[in-house]
Amino acid sequence: MRKIDLICTKCKTTFPVERLYPRCDICNEPLEVEKVVTGRINRGNVLNQTILERYADFFPFAKIDKTISLYEGFTPLVRSLGLASELSIKNIFFKNESQNPTWSFKDRGTVAGIQHAISLGYKRIGTVSTGNMAVSVAAYGARVGLETFILVSASLPPEKLNPIAIHNPILIKVDGDYGELYFDSLEIGKQNNIYFINSDVPFRVEGSKTIAFEICEQMNFEVPGYVVVPTSSGGNIRGILKGFEEFRLCGLINKVPKMICAQASGCSPIYNAYSSHAEVISPVENPHTIAHAIENPYPPSGNEVLRRIKENRGTCVAVTDEETLQAQKQLAKIGIFGQPASAVPLASVKKLREQSFLDENDTVVCIVTGGGLKDTTVFENLELKIVNSRLENLNELIGSERQRIDAAASNRRGFLEN
Amino acid sequence: MRKIDLICTKCKTTFPVERLYPRCDICNEPLEVEKVVTGRINRGNVLNQTILERYADFFPFAKIDKTISLYEGFTPLVRSLGLASELSIKNIFFKNESQNPTWSFKDRGTVAGIQHAISLGYKRIGTVSTGNMAVSVAAYGARVGLETFILVSASLPPEKLNPIAIHNPILIKVDGDYGELYFDSLEIGKQNNIYFINSDVPFRVEGSKTIAFEICEQMNFEVPGYVVVPTSSGGNIRGILKGFEEFRLCGLINKVPKMICAQASGCSPIYNAYSSHAEVISPVENPHTIAHAIENPYPPSGNEVLRRIKENRGTCVAVTDEETLQAQKQLAKIGIFGQPASAVPLASVKKLREQSFLDENDTVVCIVTGGGLKDTTVFENLELKIVNSRLENLNELIGSERQRIDAAASNRRGFLEN
Repeated sequence: MRKIDLICTKCKTTFPVERLYPRCDICNEPLEVEKVVTGRINRGNVLNQTILERYADFFPFAKIDKTISLYEGFTPLVRSLGLASELSIKNIFFKNESQNPTWSFKDRGTVAGIQHAISLGYKRIGTVSTGNMAVSVAAYGARVGLETFILVSASLPPEKLNPIAIHNPILIKVDGDYGELYFDSLEIGKQNNIYFINSDVPFRVEGSKTIAFEICEQMNFEVPGYVVVPTSSGGNIRGILKGFEEFRLCGLINKVPKMICAQASGCSPIYNAYSSHAEVISPVENPHTIAHAIENPYPPSGNEVLRRIKENRGTCVAVTDEETLQAQKQLAKIGIFGQPASAVPLASVKKLREQSFLDENDTVVCIVTGGGLKDTTVFENLELKIVNSRLENLNELIGSERQRIDAAASNRRGFLEN
Repeated sequence: MRKIDLICTKCKTTFPVERLYPRCDICNEPLEVEKVVTGRINRGNVLNQTILERYADFFPFAKIDKTISLYEGFTPLVRSLGLASELSIKNIFFKNESQNPTWSFKDRGTVAGIQHAISLGYKRIGTVSTGNMAVSVAAYGARVGLETFILVSASLPPEKLNPIAIHNPILIKVDGDYGELYFDSLEIGKQNNIYFINSDVPFRVEGSKTIAFEICEQMNFEVPGYVVVPTSSGGNIRGILKGFEEFRLCGLINKVPKMICAQASGCSPIYNAYSSHAEVISPVENPHTIAHAIENPYPPSGNEVLRRIKENRGTCVAVTDEETLQAQKQLAKIGIFGQPASAVPLASVKKLREQSFLDENDTVVCIVTGGGLKDTTVFENLELKIVNSRLENLNELIGSERQRIDAAASNRRGFLEN
């Protein structure tokens, strides 16, 4: 096992890897695991591997415990020729994280966090979350048989609580300031020997690296120009960027894609700071967006994302709920039903293409972070088309629907020919 | 391209593979694609393959069109040591089909069906379904850009309609007998040049073979004693069995697992016929179960499943809703949240173990057919545990929860030591 440190993302002070508190004592910025500079992929049959096994060189674990895994990761990279042509862009791909065990990217960070917790001898894990992360930690805590504490906001509705509760964690609805809860939980963890795998803790960020690793493999190590990530706490985009950087340091790829931090305009603290040339983010007052999964008014990794985006020469973008809903429908029309936050990258690509930030020679990968069934209240905002028929009239109805469609297609052809 | 036929599962009459009507003109039993007797796996990186590519030798397609795929299949096989010990069985595995693109096994049959439809030159596809299959065909129809007709029952509630409608098919609610609709749709398909990929059509069954292929690979070709499949139309269990048989014919495995047809006692036409030694199934009057995904009162492949189960020396079993709900919670406690139908196999294993049909030397694979978020009304029946706290009392609460759990654990130890 490689001897490694945690390093402050800002002042570069080092701390022991056993440290639970994920922030620097000096500048209060997030810590990260030091970068891997030599490593290779354990090529084997993905059908029988876990991400921690395949990319073991990139994790500081002496021993991988396969029984933790629910076989997260190894998600598809889906190319859309139709959308590429519609957007007038060279290539657009979607990394579909909704095919994870709990149907979001969170499972990658959860498995890495639990592997770390277990390697340090912890018997208790926890998280503070309102959605995908809570479900993920509850499921994996159940899988491993650890005492699992899930802290959620008191206002969480039953449809969000139930998919957490089904895994039987110690589920606590906490009445009080939710931002404070993030920091309080770290203190509570220390006192009660609970390893809190919160949104941007170092090993959750490590888990997100595997998204980049897979994209490299799936694109035969020809990395895309841009990767667009719906951004909340900032942990996921940090992890994906770190993954590309480590593969480059190890000589597996020869450049790092530019990262695009995509937010909802109703809650876009990182975009706000970026566009006003501020050095640090400010909390958003009264956040409001349908993209609940990225509705974090004061992301703990916000400043770090801001620094890295500037360095990396990516950009930040914010899209309206209207644009997001339209993109969600567009995504479903190529077969992928993502939750609203997962449509934010597609809406962002559209916007950046209109603004000519992206051009017709660009290749873009959008991260679809979670599945659409996680947030079905959104259907109220979608005008969906349904026809009624009696069985005896069905043949006739289908015949006329066919004619209608064929006529529309031939009109379109006529229009194009004129 | 291998010249192949469709063969009647009962009287063995052959038909051309281009035939749309999936049943025999003589005995009205389902047709199937003739068995593959020589073939090998295209070993390659699963991260860049589709199931139709990896197992191309087992499909009669001259050319695989990769752009149809949403990267279905290659789902995890999750082992549970805890449940094996609880059930006093050698090994229990769960094939987690909820990690498919539309979160159910249906995507495998859909991709095979569409590949076949396209190879025959069809521009229109359709299906008759109330759930998983409708979503799957709608998503893939959108992916490929085919005219897609989805026929559902008029009584389908909005929460089931919306995830279909989001993919923008021609979605028709049909008022009339649902059983009749299955047969009518085949006639309508013929008249309107629509390739209907219904539940047990030959190429949907072909898609399900890949579940067996993957299990073989994941278990290093040491096949399990039993595979337990939640059974509705019968198409999936037929496909899985056919997959194992083809791998055996090709010399890739040396035995075929026994198949267990698992049904809900509120709708168990195949189990009823099996246990009363009938030659054919009878329609169930007033079907009623929480396992809606397998609530088919008169399954079109029922007789064939009955014949094959007897030949194969597997068995049929039916479990109550109460047993299913308990199994659903148990499954969630090892990290997998399946829809109620997906918990029927675990409930069945429990029952068959109690009845000593299964013993402590047996290895069993349960098919988790679809994800839990597809059917959340079930939460009303689950007593889920949630604790409330104010932020300032949280540390204290967590401390006392810890003590409670530790005390319970030490009591258990005391009990075991006595």
